[in-house]
Amino acid sequence: MSGLAGIVAGETSISAAGGAHNLEYCGYSIYDLAEHCIFEEIAYLLLHKSLPNKTQLGEFCEELKSRRDLPVPLREVLERIPKTAHPMDVLRTGVSFLGNIELESETHDQYEITKRLLGAFPALLVYWWTHAHTGKKISCESDSETIAEHFLTLLHQQKSSDLHVKAMNVSLILYAEHEFNASTFTARTITSTLSDFYSAVCGAIGALRGPLHGGANEAAMELISRVDNVDDARDMVKGMLSRKELIMGFGHRVYTEADPRNRVIKEWSKRLCTEGGKPALYDVSETIENIMWEEKKLFPNLDFYSASTYHMMEVPTPLFTPIFVMSRITGWAAHIFEQRENNKLIRPSAIYTGPEKLDFIRLEDR
Amino acid sequence: MSGLAGIVAGETSISAAGGAHNLEYCGYSIYDLAEHCIFEEIAYLLLHKSLPNKTQLGEFCEELKSRRDLPVPLREVLERIPKTAHPMDVLRTGVSFLGNIELESETHDQYEITKRLLGAFPALLVYWWTHAHTGKKISCESDSETIAEHFLTLLHQQKSSDLHVKAMNVSLILYAEHEFNASTFTARTITSTLSDFYSAVCGAIGALRGPLHGGANEAAMELISRVDNVDDARDMVKGMLSRKELIMGFGHRVYTEADPRNRVIKEWSKRLCTEGGKPALYDVSETIENIMWEEKKLFPNLDFYSASTYHMMEVPTPLFTPIFVMSRITGWAAHIFEQRENNKLIRPSAIYTGPEKLDFIRLEDR
Repeated sequence: MSGLAGIVAGETSISAAGGAHNLEYCGYSIYDLAEHCIFEEIAYLLLHKSLPNKTQLGEFCEELKSRRDLPVPLREVLERIPKTAHPMDVLRTGVSFLGNIELESETHDQYEITKRLLGAFPALLVYWWTHAHTGKKISCESDSETIAEHFLTLLHQQKSSDLHVKAMNVSLILYAEHEFNASTFTARTITSTLSDFYSAVCGAIGALRGPLHGGANEAAMELISRVDNVDDARDMVKGMLSRKELIMGFGHRVYTEADPRNRVIKEWSKRLCTEGGKPALYDVSETIENIMWEEKKLFPNLDFYSASTYHMMEVPTPLFTPIFVMSRITGWAAHIFEQRENNKLIRPSAIYTGPEKLDFIRLEDR
Repeated sequence: MSGLAGIVAGETSISAAGGAHNLEYCGYSIYDLAEHCIFEEIAYLLLHKSLPNKTQLGEFCEELKSRRDLPVPLREVLERIPKTAHPMDVLRTGVSFLGNIELESETHDQYEITKRLLGAFPALLVYWWTHAHTGKKISCESDSETIAEHFLTLLHQQKSSDLHVKAMNVSLILYAEHEFNASTFTARTITSTLSDFYSAVCGAIGALRGPLHGGANEAAMELISRVDNVDDARDMVKGMLSRKELIMGFGHRVYTEADPRNRVIKEWSKRLCTEGGKPALYDVSETIENIMWEEKKLFPNLDFYSASTYHMMEVPTPLFTPIFVMSRITGWAAHIFEQRENNKLIRPSAIYTGPEKLDFIRLEDR
């Protein structure tokens, strides 16, 4: 199985990853975007192919704010999902259900649905999480201006620090878009049959759930939680490598020497761990990074330091990959738009390796 | 966009389509299978790579029968979906919800879930359909031995003729598996991130929903319903062709001269239309087939005559594509199993065509 590695599956003008570009969204370096923007500017950029001015950004943020609340039937569905469920399955189910009551149509089109999901994802996740764990039915709305702050406010039921809100914005920006990754390619394949927007997003959430894709940030947290000092971290990773165990959060099909996003999230991890009084968490992470490079020439990808960053914001580990969804919905949407603009059914071929032309035997003779 | 046409995305031993094989499931010609088998034999074949003997088939059918009922929370979710919803979205949502309450685990593995979905799909669809249209909450179980008969029994709330049960079996057999089609390829891509079984099936349902894939049988019904005689059929299709309108149910990426499944379903369409007193429906279909060949050298695929076949069984048109799901779950499952046996992340490349290295402009200067 080649996994289509290096096979060109199409063209895109949404992002360029790898090579001389490092990583650009619509031509802009992610370093500039992560330093100067809020996530909503990046959402607007990916959906409109240009950065918003102040008026456009203000209107866009208001539109998202007005789409945060969840309809009653959707809340009733979420209330029926037990706390043993996987949060990614909850998001997939919530989006799928919403597709039944807010159908895509001429008057409720792909751009409307994108804004709706951008607005509603934080509540979709936190309403269920809080209800499943405490039985409490939270309000789905808040006064927070940004998605980053709104999510943290719903989760903690109190205002977060500016530092945490900024870190969450950076994280959402870095996760927003990444070319033909597996979940985006899934969304494009589903779209290519002329299916609806919700179907494409449900498929993308399902693909992102796997530990070889978005699930890696949770696996990274599990790893760095096992030890509390650099000596134990070193022993643990060397032991894992000698036993050929898979270590998540390292390497990337598109990059050969480094994931450009790592530089940014690593700085934020360091800052949050230090200011939050858990420098050992960062030190353990960096120790693992160094050994992985020395021993395997593997570099951390975005998922690795996202783990400690989220942990310092007191985000429960099972919610790490769902944050990826809240962000990547923008990239998925942009790719669904692009696929529809110049559609062709995505349908590859297979090589058959099984038996051929077998004689049929009737049931009574088997 | 090439749509990966002719690009080999991997190996499979589940089915061979096109070329000298025409269409074989695990080495057996679909002509033998459609003539002599019930659908459950084909489900067993695809999942086990061998045809069952009488004992194995009996046990398998019993296992499926025991998995027909729907849990109360799932029924409550279905009761909240209005009749305006798309039935494929209902199936996608039902499967997604089930993934929250019957999670994949070591004790509830991929084979168990496959049997569960095979058993539960008829009720998942018909419970919702009946409730949405009449408010009635039907029993999800029946004494019917086969999925084909069980579905028709739930739908019509009475026993169907042996002829209709046989035709439904044939249809389920023909739809069961078809190599790397778009929905199966979607399931494999999702699986390739090491995601769970339900996520792969939700994605596949979403892909199948589109009119360039499973949705074609409903589009074909809409077409043949517009006229009631061959003269009007001829005028209609010639008019559509002259206006370059897309006519669904014709052509196939894998076949160049004919879809091997068409020969079988066409015979059943003829038989059901004739014996059911609607010969004009078949004649209209055949007229359209002839013109499409004369004018465009396009042949009917499986979807085209499936439309009239289902119609004669009094299946409402919006339920045509969901029947495809009830059948294709077997092929999807077999491909998920196969992908997992020798997994590699499916992640192609893209050619970037957008602007590069743009200078960033701060919000206050835009």
